[in-house]
Amino acid sequence: MSLKSVLFSALFAAAALPVHALDSSAGKLTVTRVADGFDQPWGVEAVPDGGILVTERGGELIHLHADGRRTFVRGVPKVVARGQGGLLDVMIPRDFATTRLVYLSYSNRDGNSYGTALGVGRLSADGTQLEGFKRIFQAARGFSGGRHFGSRIVEARDGTIFLTLGDRGDRPSAQDRRNHNGAVIRVRKTGITPPNNPFVGQPGTEPEIYSYGHRNPQGAALDLQGNLWVAEHGAQGGDEVNKITPGANYGWPVISYGRHYSGAKIGEGTSKRGMEQPEHYWDPSIAPSGMMIYSGKLWPEWKGDIFVGSLKFDMISRLDGRSMAEERLSSRETGRVRDVIEAPSGAIWFLSVADGALYEITP
Amino acid sequence: MSLKSVLFSALFAAAALPVHALDSSAGKLTVTRVADGFDQPWGVEAVPDGGILVTERGGELIHLHADGRRTFVRGVPKVVARGQGGLLDVMIPRDFATTRLVYLSYSNRDGNSYGTALGVGRLSADGTQLEGFKRIFQAARGFSGGRHFGSRIVEARDGTIFLTLGDRGDRPSAQDRRNHNGAVIRVRKTGITPPNNPFVGQPGTEPEIYSYGHRNPQGAALDLQGNLWVAEHGAQGGDEVNKITPGANYGWPVISYGRHYSGAKIGEGTSKRGMEQPEHYWDPSIAPSGMMIYSGKLWPEWKGDIFVGSLKFDMISRLDGRSMAEERLSSRETGRVRDVIEAPSGAIWFLSVADGALYEITP
Repeated sequence: MSLKSVLFSALFAAAALPVHALDSSAGKLTVTRVADGFDQPWGVEAVPDGGILVTERGGELIHLHADGRRTFVRGVPKVVARGQGGLLDVMIPRDFATTRLVYLSYSNRDGNSYGTALGVGRLSADGTQLEGFKRIFQAARGFSGGRHFGSRIVEARDGTIFLTLGDRGDRPSAQDRRNHNGAVIRVRKTGITPPNNPFVGQPGTEPEIYSYGHRNPQGAALDLQGNLWVAEHGAQGGDEVNKITPGANYGWPVISYGRHYSGAKIGEGTSKRGMEQPEHYWDPSIAPSGMMIYSGKLWPEWKGDIFVGSLKFDMISRLDGRSMAEERLSSRETGRVRDVIEAPSGAIWFLSVADGALYEITP
Repeated sequence: MSLKSVLFSALFAAAALPVHALDSSAGKLTVTRVADGFDQPWGVEAVPDGGILVTERGGELIHLHADGRRTFVRGVPKVVARGQGGLLDVMIPRDFATTRLVYLSYSNRDGNSYGTALGVGRLSADGTQLEGFKRIFQAARGFSGGRHFGSRIVEARDGTIFLTLGDRGDRPSAQDRRNHNGAVIRVRKTGITPPNNPFVGQPGTEPEIYSYGHRNPQGAALDLQGNLWVAEHGAQGGDEVNKITPGANYGWPVISYGRHYSGAKIGEGTSKRGMEQPEHYWDPSIAPSGMMIYSGKLWPEWKGDIFVGSLKFDMISRLDGRSMAEERLSSRETGRVRDVIEAPSGAIWFLSVADGALYEITP
């Protein structure tokens, strides 16, 4: 039996497995419910042994074991489930088979401020516990508000870790490199700053910063060449997809294609010397969530394409990797999408916030 | 300056203080916003020095200090903010001035089950920390679902502590005294079982149980004679107000005035020998939240009346303490009500879930 069929037969008893069809440019797709019963699921990751880890924003990490058991993983850090914060992303590095390390991002409290943290623990042999969980990064100078925590975790090809961070609702701080707000940061697996980070050694700059001027990047993925891309929530009409260049400034809140929700103009316009332009922007906004760049395994015609979940329109946006032309894959029957990943089989997995379920898309 | 005016002037800078008028059988009332910015507030309690404690379901205990500062209290236990669970009620006992003890109820995890717990810590002199927080009660044999945790904490006249517990969505368990689901429990301040609890010494019964057969009591208060009353969510059309007799069985799910949401009949009907009748029931349901029985301090005509918040109809229900005749005080401008208490001044305080604010009603 393949990994996938083991998984499915095991989960069959637990979830009702409704199936529906979906039209797309690559033909008819099948959407299958893999598991449900999640409360505010945020991140999903495949465990190499055939299991699945799902984070719930309220603070639970759920393990759907390959044998069909479902357990709540012990040893997860205390989080602050406030506003948009809580337990956020989960990431399993490529060396999991030997290290069993699992990375988590989460919002936590430092005095009267909230920030985003990154930590790591070792999944026990029975998959029910994170052993020795340790925080390896804490965003400096958080903010009291409950918005814009980021945060997706991506492992770079060189084994360093990217974490995306929102501006915490404190707009000017996204341009201030003395804090981590509105930045993509890069650290080694132990949390140490890589010496080749772009701002290392510059006074008045947090050395973990890799790029800045972001508003609230909640999607991130590597492309097939190993470049980092992020999807970020803009203000009204200004959601962006950005290809990340080390040290670059992505312009928030000085430039933006969006407008404040009041209708007022933001900053100085849509472009400025020294600030990057997005590869794509959405107007009207789609409220972009998780992002995945596709390998081409099951749908060769979608190789290198960018898939971004929408928290607004009950759909997954597919952007052609070259032209950025958009196709919208409807999730009308499954609701708003919180995360999108490629499963080991090449299928597309996504988390629906509306019905707290994990779905699989296959040809 | 009175305690209240100190509080108000201090908070004035933080909250916008909109005021609106409300008609009632006791004349025109004024509704004032005391503080806002709460995320899913659940319980509120006045601190005797003029401050206020508010719980947020996500796990924060917020202290609005008498001098206007607002701090997040450190030392609060890790909670599971899942489904209806999280950090729930807060209770300040009458001996606070000497002990500085603060009681909290919360949902937590035991393996793959969730239960409701009760714990206590000492509020530090500066009001920013719960020192030595200790769990003193844990509901036995929780349930994996995320519904019906209860839970209000009430201090009895004899200094023992009542905690209301829901059936955890596991209906039959409310009739099973081998677990705490669907029960009101009573413990000493240290968590020890009082020897005069009704089921002490009976085999197959949890000794903390004081009454049982409840569905999801989220409101509780003492009347002016010191009797415990609870308000509980029924199924469709079966919300109840019950006066609690030690050892009594309140009938859920054998008898109920409600129907299942499917329309199907529940149990055996509306009455049965050996099971208590409610003092009042609501059909249609109002989704009753916090409950307060009024001293008469500012509105003598309401002395002994029962105030219950509604999570469904944007109102506070006032039940005449003798006739149970109902008057509905509209909270149309402030939204669904999560908790209602009497302030030290005799004013009515309530928490609005919709806009995350604490309001005060005065004549």
